Amino acid sequence: MRTITVRTSKEYDVLIGKGLLSRAGEEIQKRLSPSRAVIVTDSNVGPLYAAAVKRSLQACGIQAAVYTFPAGEAQKRLSTIAEMYEVFAAAGLTRKDMAVALGGGVTGDMCGFASATYLRGIPFVQIPTSLLAQVDSSVGGKTGVDLEVGKNLVGAFWQPSLVLCDIGTLSTLPGRYFSDGMAEAVKAGCIKDKDLFSRMEAEDVHGFLEEMIARCIDIKRQVVENDEKEQGERMLLNFGHTLGHAIERLHHYEGVAHGEAVAVGMVRAALAGEKAGVTEPGTAARIQAVLEKFSLPTQTGFSDEELAKAAFTDKKRGTNGVSFVLLHGIGDSFLRPVELNELESFIKI
Amino acid sequence: MRTITVRTSKEYDVLIGKGLLSRAGEEIQKRLSPSRAVIVTDSNVGPLYAAAVKRSLQACGIQAAVYTFPAGEAQKRLSTIAEMYEVFAAAGLTRKDMAVALGGGVTGDMCGFASATYLRGIPFVQIPTSLLAQVDSSVGGKTGVDLEVGKNLVGAFWQPSLVLCDIGTLSTLPGRYFSDGMAEAVKAGCIKDKDLFSRMEAEDVHGFLEEMIARCIDIKRQVVENDEKEQGERMLLNFGHTLGHAIERLHHYEGVAHGEAVAVGMVRAALAGEKAGVTEPGTAARIQAVLEKFSLPTQTGFSDEELAKAAFTDKKRGTNGVSFVLLHGIGDSFLRPVELNELESFIKI
Repeated sequence: MRTITVRTSKEYDVLIGKGLLSRAGEEIQKRLSPSRAVIVTDSNVGPLYAAAVKRSLQACGIQAAVYTFPAGEAQKRLSTIAEMYEVFAAAGLTRKDMAVALGGGVTGDMCGFASATYLRGIPFVQIPTSLLAQVDSSVGGKTGVDLEVGKNLVGAFWQPSLVLCDIGTLSTLPGRYFSDGMAEAVKAGCIKDKDLFSRMEAEDVHGFLEEMIARCIDIKRQVVENDEKEQGERMLLNFGHTLGHAIERLHHYEGVAHGEAVAVGMVRAALAGEKAGVTEPGTAARIQAVLEKFSLPTQTGFSDEELAKAAFTDKKRGTNGVSFVLLHGIGDSFLRPVELNELESFIKI
Repeated sequence: MRTITVRTSKEYDVLIGKGLLSRAGEEIQKRLSPSRAVIVTDSNVGPLYAAAVKRSLQACGIQAAVYTFPAGEAQKRLSTIAEMYEVFAAAGLTRKDMAVALGGGVTGDMCGFASATYLRGIPFVQIPTSLLAQVDSSVGGKTGVDLEVGKNLVGAFWQPSLVLCDIGTLSTLPGRYFSDGMAEAVKAGCIKDKDLFSRMEAEDVHGFLEEMIARCIDIKRQVVENDEKEQGERMLLNFGHTLGHAIERLHHYEGVAHGEAVAVGMVRAALAGEKAGVTEPGTAARIQAVLEKFSLPTQTGFSDEELAKAAFTDKKRGTNGVSFVLLHGIGDSFLRPVELNELESFIKI
């Protein structure tokens, strides 16, 4: 087992290893002293793991209730949050109690947001069960929910009090979801860790999964510690995301996974950087090759105009432009402001 | 005009004076650089002041839209927040733009919460138009919304970027609402300012309204700067509120104003302190006399048992008790933990 301590406005541990689900109560009690907990999960993950987590909490004297919502991105909406509030109230949670997010990114984002806002903030523990959530979304304190007019338009920065990444849960993850998470792992290598990227190129990642996850989390830790509220450096984590989000939007968030869209966005951003003469030639080809290893797409049928237009509504943009993430080379990233009216020609390849 | 600078996680000015409504654009532009704003107001305040504020923003080159919701505490619910989000999105607000809360406590609490959570936080400006909001709720960053099962159960700590207290708006305030605000002003004197309390006893407050408001805000500033997230000292601001909230709850939040309930709660807390031998004798009588000057109630027909039971659901309680605010004397307050099973006998007079 590995432990990474994240020092943001709240300091918390991220544990990575096997068998953590059934030790959840114990690990929580070492750090917090809740009397009650609500375990938030979805209809895919709940049947697999909720009972084990509940049992572990109860064995440590924590009263635990389970709230299960129907799986799927379509549930990531305010009405689901409103239901969570009702469950928290019915369970009698106080600011000394906690919520537990057991599942993938949707579960973590929503349970985190409900925790950030219930009683103006209660502690919550992340137990990510997808690779995407383990390497990326469970750490760093971004929480959110979708509106009809756009994804993640509502949310809060709210750090978890503990993150338990049980890599045993990855064995039940369908292959496409594993690839989805690998896109964010490749991203971590691209922006900050040349060695990690090289190992992903050369080796079978299943041979060093715990280490890979830990390195991805450690990269996120560094960036988030320096810029918790995304004023600058944290934007580096958006490598591939400006166009990735645009692609997801153009697909109306159906039929394309987040990681798949980000994969295409990363290749495109590397090509744009090469064209602009700021990125080492050949970088895009290396990224493309490693993504193909995980059966991730690297091209889109949408036009430059469609992509630029869809990127316009990104919430991270300022009034007149976006902070585009580019690479000097693998492991070496930087931000470049791009005016909205230049965006289309900038991404043309 | 007076200026008080509040130094919390965000530093911001509170301006107190006449004619600030029509200078809103100018004062905002000195401190922020928004391109767009949404003015959030209710159906009582909007018709009186929204046009003047909108005009002032537009004159400074800020695109301004107005969102008006039906006046009344019943609107303080998640569905109104969801509407605000839609309006913010339709107006194209980014993190560099802002919302403006124009109205009383309900407007400020809700607009503040929507601002805290839209795009994970956008700036907002408070323009409180009631005495209660000017002396108390517009400063300090508590935002919130009610659930069916309880008041203010959902919210966030989110500081405004500027507060404009235009005392001209108080002239349109019905007498009962003025009294409502005076209860919180009396509270400020009780917990931290003996001189202010003495002047409220001896003088006509309309003769030093601007100074009174400024002193109340300055007391709140001190307390909030020391304890922004309400871990300790900030709880002193709840003097009279443990029982005040219980009384509001027992009235089902109908027919009793917040200030009226707090008035009763303050007298009762002072009497409990005298009975316990920790509060200077005669303190309750002085508080009662000054409250009666503003036609505020000082007694309730509910039994000690009913009050204690209703106080049990207060969100500020820990698992087994409440932090009860008591006075040594006027201007000198402290916290005393009271176990829930002692509460009924503690408040018996």
